[in-house]
Amino acid sequence: MSRPDWIALDWGTTHLRAWAMSASGTVLDERVSDRGMGRLDPDEFEPVLREACADWLGEGGVPMIACGMVGARQGWAEAAYAPVPCPPLSPALTAVPGRLDAWIIPGLSQSDPADVMRGEETQIAGFLALNPGWDGVLCLPGSHSKWAHVSAGEVVSFRSFMTGELFAALSAHTVLRHSIPAEGWDEAAFDAGVAETLSRPERLAAALFTIRAADILHGQDGAQARSRLSGLLIGAELAAAKPYWLGQQIGVIGAGGLASLYVRALGAQGAPATQANATAATLAGLTAAWKKRTQA
Amino acid sequence: MSRPDWIALDWGTTHLRAWAMSASGTVLDERVSDRGMGRLDPDEFEPVLREACADWLGEGGVPMIACGMVGARQGWAEAAYAPVPCPPLSPALTAVPGRLDAWIIPGLSQSDPADVMRGEETQIAGFLALNPGWDGVLCLPGSHSKWAHVSAGEVVSFRSFMTGELFAALSAHTVLRHSIPAEGWDEAAFDAGVAETLSRPERLAAALFTIRAADILHGQDGAQARSRLSGLLIGAELAAAKPYWLGQQIGVIGAGGLASLYVRALGAQGAPATQANATAATLAGLTAAWKKRTQA
Repeated sequence: MSRPDWIALDWGTTHLRAWAMSASGTVLDERVSDRGMGRLDPDEFEPVLREACADWLGEGGVPMIACGMVGARQGWAEAAYAPVPCPPLSPALTAVPGRLDAWIIPGLSQSDPADVMRGEETQIAGFLALNPGWDGVLCLPGSHSKWAHVSAGEVVSFRSFMTGELFAALSAHTVLRHSIPAEGWDEAAFDAGVAETLSRPERLAAALFTIRAADILHGQDGAQARSRLSGLLIGAELAAAKPYWLGQQIGVIGAGGLASLYVRALGAQGAPATQANATAATLAGLTAAWKKRTQA
Repeated sequence: MSRPDWIALDWGTTHLRAWAMSASGTVLDERVSDRGMGRLDPDEFEPVLREACADWLGEGGVPMIACGMVGARQGWAEAAYAPVPCPPLSPALTAVPGRLDAWIIPGLSQSDPADVMRGEETQIAGFLALNPGWDGVLCLPGSHSKWAHVSAGEVVSFRSFMTGELFAALSAHTVLRHSIPAEGWDEAAFDAGVAETLSRPERLAAALFTIRAADILHGQDGAQARSRLSGLLIGAELAAAKPYWLGQQIGVIGAGGLASLYVRALGAQGAPATQANATAATLAGLTAAWKKRTQA
């Protein structure tokens, strides 16, 4: 492999993803490790990165562009949030102190309602790079799902939903843990759950315990219980995000299963959505940041 | 102390509360231990109880009436649910196999929407014993809050809300743990949270993450964050339970702080509620069951 012109990094709480890149944006090599920023002390970032990319770095300094929670206050170097409305890629990247030629893409913030994102701004930038001139709403499902209103190349506003983390906390740390298995899927139960809270969001609070009670009383199937919980929570998210997606062009950025569920749920509401690959969007966003930096 | 005529037991998941009682319903002695049924194997119940009440039991058998999760399938002896509509105290108590003269009050179940309660039926019976002829709605706040429609001495229907457990799971097992302290209270933040989700329940999903973001961006005070989360969740419960309480006579059964919050939130909606002491209601319910049994 020829020496990369730069290195792209997606450094989140749980994982570090690295790509060796050519100047033109071709991927020469890639790797993933579980050295997420959530497990690292401040002085561990540089050694971890040097070890992960030793063969790419060689003797000299290869420029690096990073996005994700690595830019948080508890991360490698704090990259101050850029307040919306603004383009997803802030013009100024944050230089990481130390001997590496490393730069972090700042996250975005919104003052009222208070909201923040780190990493998703890069995926939004990548989506826009892959779909020039695109206007509408982007949904990025995950632990903290984001909905962003994008117009004329800027993020106008956005909202976060703790849907993924709620699912995890409810199924592991409440009485529902006795009724929610780790695996199993039932499409009809998911669809019914979505329909219930999307049309009557106030019912979420009452609907959760029925999952446990239906198991106790009627021996409800575990796959049904799991899918129903997922549907109830995604339905509640879609109800809250309705001012975002109603009548808009919608893009869902996400890997496989979870994003497909959002596309399916939106489709059932007569709101067709385009699904985009999350990794491709991240890489396109990092590449856009690299090009901006070299052109600056 | 004279030997009790019977022993009243409130045996829940986390605690065992026992009272030495006279035939007329006077409390002669009482004690609490942390030997809740959640920590006991099936063969531990009898020894634990013998140890906890050794001086009350003496040589001979003293009758015992128990309520709570002790009657669950994983408890001491399963007391099958009585389906609503029915009086809160089922005519038939469940005898515990073994050498103690012990009886368990069955919980209540509802087929559709699926729901169950264990322990609250005794508090409802006690409330009705203390307030004869009372018709209306009873709210029993807790890990799994219950709302019960009571008419002509029967529980007509009821719904459970995982509000207390949601608060615990969100503040301990999600990103909100960084922003929610264990203590601290801000009444205005609570009131605002209740008002927000009670009027717009679909906003709950979006409002949760703002607690974290307001901390990151504006350094939101911890007491405010904690009170806001509580308000958002109780507001969502009240929104879902509105068909229960709107225009009804309301009683809130609960100890101190948490029940007061419900009374406060309902009052702000122009729905005055009477607060009743939970322990007094439990004891009155166990006494009503004892009397029924001795008269039978």
